Amino acid sequence: MVNISKLQDSYFRIKKFINNTPILTSDRMNNEFGGFFYLKNEVDQVTGSFKIRGALSALSNLKDKNVCGVVAYSSGNHAQGVSKAAQIFDMHAIIVMPEDAPQNKIDKTIANGAEVVLYKRHIESREEIAKKIADDKQYPLVKPFDNVDIIAGQGSFGLEACEYFIQNNIFPDIVLSCTSGGGLVAGTSIAFKHYFPDVQIYPVEPLTCNDTEISLKNKTRTRLKTHQNTICDALEVEIPGEITFPINLENCTAGISVTDEEVCKAMKYLYDEFQVKAEPSGCVSLAAVLSNKINVKGKHVLITISGGNVDKHDFSKYLKLAKD
Amino acid sequence: MVNISKLQDSYFRIKKFINNTPILTSDRMNNEFGGFFYLKNEVDQVTGSFKIRGALSALSNLKDKNVCGVVAYSSGNHAQGVSKAAQIFDMHAIIVMPEDAPQNKIDKTIANGAEVVLYKRHIESREEIAKKIADDKQYPLVKPFDNVDIIAGQGSFGLEACEYFIQNNIFPDIVLSCTSGGGLVAGTSIAFKHYFPDVQIYPVEPLTCNDTEISLKNKTRTRLKTHQNTICDALEVEIPGEITFPINLENCTAGISVTDEEVCKAMKYLYDEFQVKAEPSGCVSLAAVLSNKINVKGKHVLITISGGNVDKHDFSKYLKLAKD
Repeated sequence: MVNISKLQDSYFRIKKFINNTPILTSDRMNNEFGGFFYLKNEVDQVTGSFKIRGALSALSNLKDKNVCGVVAYSSGNHAQGVSKAAQIFDMHAIIVMPEDAPQNKIDKTIANGAEVVLYKRHIESREEIAKKIADDKQYPLVKPFDNVDIIAGQGSFGLEACEYFIQNNIFPDIVLSCTSGGGLVAGTSIAFKHYFPDVQIYPVEPLTCNDTEISLKNKTRTRLKTHQNTICDALEVEIPGEITFPINLENCTAGISVTDEEVCKAMKYLYDEFQVKAEPSGCVSLAAVLSNKINVKGKHVLITISGGNVDKHDFSKYLKLAKD
Repeated sequence: MVNISKLQDSYFRIKKFINNTPILTSDRMNNEFGGFFYLKNEVDQVTGSFKIRGALSALSNLKDKNVCGVVAYSSGNHAQGVSKAAQIFDMHAIIVMPEDAPQNKIDKTIANGAEVVLYKRHIESREEIAKKIADDKQYPLVKPFDNVDIIAGQGSFGLEACEYFIQNNIFPDIVLSCTSGGGLVAGTSIAFKHYFPDVQIYPVEPLTCNDTEISLKNKTRTRLKTHQNTICDALEVEIPGEITFPINLENCTAGISVTDEEVCKAMKYLYDEFQVKAEPSGCVSLAAVLSNKINVKGKHVLITISGGNVDKHDFSKYLKLAKD
């Protein structure tokens, strides 16, 4: 079970290795949209996304149990998080990545000291490959969200945000969280519901991967039937987590979804107004506000900016799309 | 003495806690200025500047000697670096900061677990206050640059850059390094002169604080007679370090200096072309290229982008100045 004391235990173990990321505000944005907005910016986090929080939490716990290596599959931020956490705790990390992953992501993972195993996307199953390696090596498989220590670690994002609100004597009304498998919003919701029980929490997803929105509506984990592409590559999952979903069902008001076009506009707004270069997946919460998916009039709203791992070429392309 | 093996020892101790920061390139910039430019971006470093490298190096060494606390004076990036390094190594840090330092810098230092002692700028001497505390507590004073472990730690910036050049089979011709007391350029020059003995290394300073440029010309440490303001607040020193200067005299070709106006233009160029929001002090090397202070035609040039700790309001102001 993940509760506030598990979050605090986890934060105590990991806080020294992470940045307590800044909360950004803008009078202009507040005036334009009629609310009070607080953007917590994980672009400035170690490894460029919040994923290091969960990875450090899970691996610090395994390290305490004398586990000397881990296996994970990811082509993105979880790979960076797990490889960096393993480097910090002197553990061996084996990361299963698709053969066609961007070379710079593979290089970064190797630079963090991890061993990278490539697989052929669409032909091989990364889960099976990872499980086989985990069995052979007797290493645990560290899943990206369905893991209580990962959820507790991502919750440190929420703890830091709550601390900010408490220190500044602000009562937050709304929390918007970028959501794929639901680890970040699950952990964050536990922190917020503890300190601010009346807050309304909304997971935000790309419209084409809105499994959490649908599952919350159905009050049960629901698998998406069709797979459609989105520029939010970090948020592509088909079904919410087994561990994360019950937490989110209890703590969240409803899901919200946004289109890729709305995400591009949010990327541009964030860059123009806050000088922050975020990845598409990192901007869905902001997109929800900018495209009026939720009533924010007079409300104090936490907006999650979850990561910044986007290459220059893609970033320019998305900003150009926002203009057209 | 600081040599390549001291740099490598230091890097071995600290690499797990830092980001191996990206090297950015731009075909457009290469075409526009007729060289090959490699911008190593410490804006993406833990604590937002390269200073964490030296701090981790110095404190890891002290920790190994069972020292349990340190004292430092700084209102800027060194404060962030030392407080974060102390947090990582479970050490007590006391940071002496001016009473009128920006509240967010004081808050960040405290958030890293440090104790902050405020002093009245222009009335009290921060060095004396820090020395007194160090004596009382029996803690070492960790100076921002005149310290062999700090220099070795900053050298990890150079080691990473050299590794990049070696892996990509590139022979760098020129290294441009932002310079205040000379710690970064001293450490970096040791790495480069080891792997690429023919490289030309240039410390770059604001024109109003060009003590290293003058000292290199005079071949002896020379104190600036007058103090004039610059927007490059992290680079305001009056005289090069006692330990750093002999290294830089041996390894560097000459100093280069740039005006605040040139720095603003470089901040804008970096933001427009690379989407990187750097502080003024972080842009002097780029300013040297953009304002033709050095012949770069056909050359492979490493440009140091040393940090990004600038607030939104100041950043907008400097970008506006660049347009006028």
